[in-house]
Amino acid sequence: MTDHPHQATRRDLLIAATALSAIALPARAATQMSRNPPTPPDGPKKMLGMVVFEGFELLDVFGPLEMFGMLNDRIDTVLIADKAGPVKSRTGPATIADVSFADAPKLDIVMVPGGSGTRREVNNPAFLAAVKALADATPQVASVCTGSGVLAKAGLLNGVKATSNKMAWEWATAQGAQVLWVPHARWVEDGKYISSSGISAGTDMALGLIARLYGKEMATWVANRAEYRWHDDPSDDPFAAMSGL
Amino acid sequence: MTDHPHQATRRDLLIAATALSAIALPARAATQMSRNPPTPPDGPKKMLGMVVFEGFELLDVFGPLEMFGMLNDRIDTVLIADKAGPVKSRTGPATIADVSFADAPKLDIVMVPGGSGTRREVNNPAFLAAVKALADATPQVASVCTGSGVLAKAGLLNGVKATSNKMAWEWATAQGAQVLWVPHARWVEDGKYISSSGISAGTDMALGLIARLYGKEMATWVANRAEYRWHDDPSDDPFAAMSGL
Repeated sequence: MTDHPHQATRRDLLIAATALSAIALPARAATQMSRNPPTPPDGPKKMLGMVVFEGFELLDVFGPLEMFGMLNDRIDTVLIADKAGPVKSRTGPATIADVSFADAPKLDIVMVPGGSGTRREVNNPAFLAAVKALADATPQVASVCTGSGVLAKAGLLNGVKATSNKMAWEWATAQGAQVLWVPHARWVEDGKYISSSGISAGTDMALGLIARLYGKEMATWVANRAEYRWHDDPSDDPFAAMSGL
Repeated sequence: MTDHPHQATRRDLLIAATALSAIALPARAATQMSRNPPTPPDGPKKMLGMVVFEGFELLDVFGPLEMFGMLNDRIDTVLIADKAGPVKSRTGPATIADVSFADAPKLDIVMVPGGSGTRREVNNPAFLAAVKALADATPQVASVCTGSGVLAKAGLLNGVKATSNKMAWEWATAQGAQVLWVPHARWVEDGKYISSSGISAGTDMALGLIARLYGKEMATWVANRAEYRWHDDPSDDPFAAMSGL
């Protein structure tokens, strides 16, 4: 083969690119897969409150708590319900609420999951008042799935952009006529509110919230640590169309 | 433009393809997003036993239980531990074991999750013997994450292909020198055993197991119902390389 100057240039570039990737890979791997987060803790620990109620959806709660749990050197979690003690999920497996609404500590984030129990709780004035008081006192309010229906019914989302579960869209949006419902979204951020689409979307939203709080490098580290493929584009929602939205 | 015969053929094919997709789409949407599974229950309900222990990883347990929970018209779940009662996860939030190993019902599937607690349990002969007895008596045995280290240490995986968490690879594989460890896999099936890679991989594996038990259409329906993007190729594992495997 002739050693044409143009070919030599391209070959040199390929060699250079290969050499660069050999240098770059270990550094990238070290950042992504270190057992320690990419930045050390900075400032006081935050407190995340997860609201639970009979009939909550398992992954709505434990997808986000898995991701936040990777950062338990800088964030603590408390499960909050009507009263402390066992709380059954929609499909049976239970968790344990640490405290009642009345005993909830000061929170940095409060999160409301979905599940069939939301159908009951939107008609429970005491529950709605407790969620409203918690949300009013907390600088960051998140919902997963039909949890946004609870926030809407509590009057928290008037004039706020929000999304919800796509198969329960009609029910969820009926909980708040003044909410600026966004049908096509994996999750939606508006001021202190962040809401996700159905069930699994809560895990992607949690990583979005981690990115907002601690930077995107940290969120990527958390996802990789959990061997989770984060869908990091909040507008990328293939499930809206499946429900005709 | 000329109506060249060759162009006409290609255009006709495009028109035909468009017409076909217009016919196919509503049926596909109806199958994917109906509230009811695509096929009615057939035969007796199955029983899935999820083993839990202090220090289990949240998503290892609740990712699979979310997916199987979508089929609670044909499968029941029981949480099994040393003794019935509260069991704390690695990061704090607890679940409640329904029964002790001694009181476990006859199972169709038994699943062992991972989590930091596996480091203790591989040195707990009573736990290993209980897991072995349960696995020996159950036709389908699954593990998530470092749960395969527990199965390996119990002597269940000798000569069996299996995978595990990629960041804990060295520890997990050290639990069984005769296991045919597969480093690059989202999940691995071999006879009655099915094992997944780390944490989130358990959710993809659970859907793989649902596909095996009830067909791929059912698994796709479950994933869509949970607004979950199933990574359905068990060999597609981007996390092995990040840990240098």
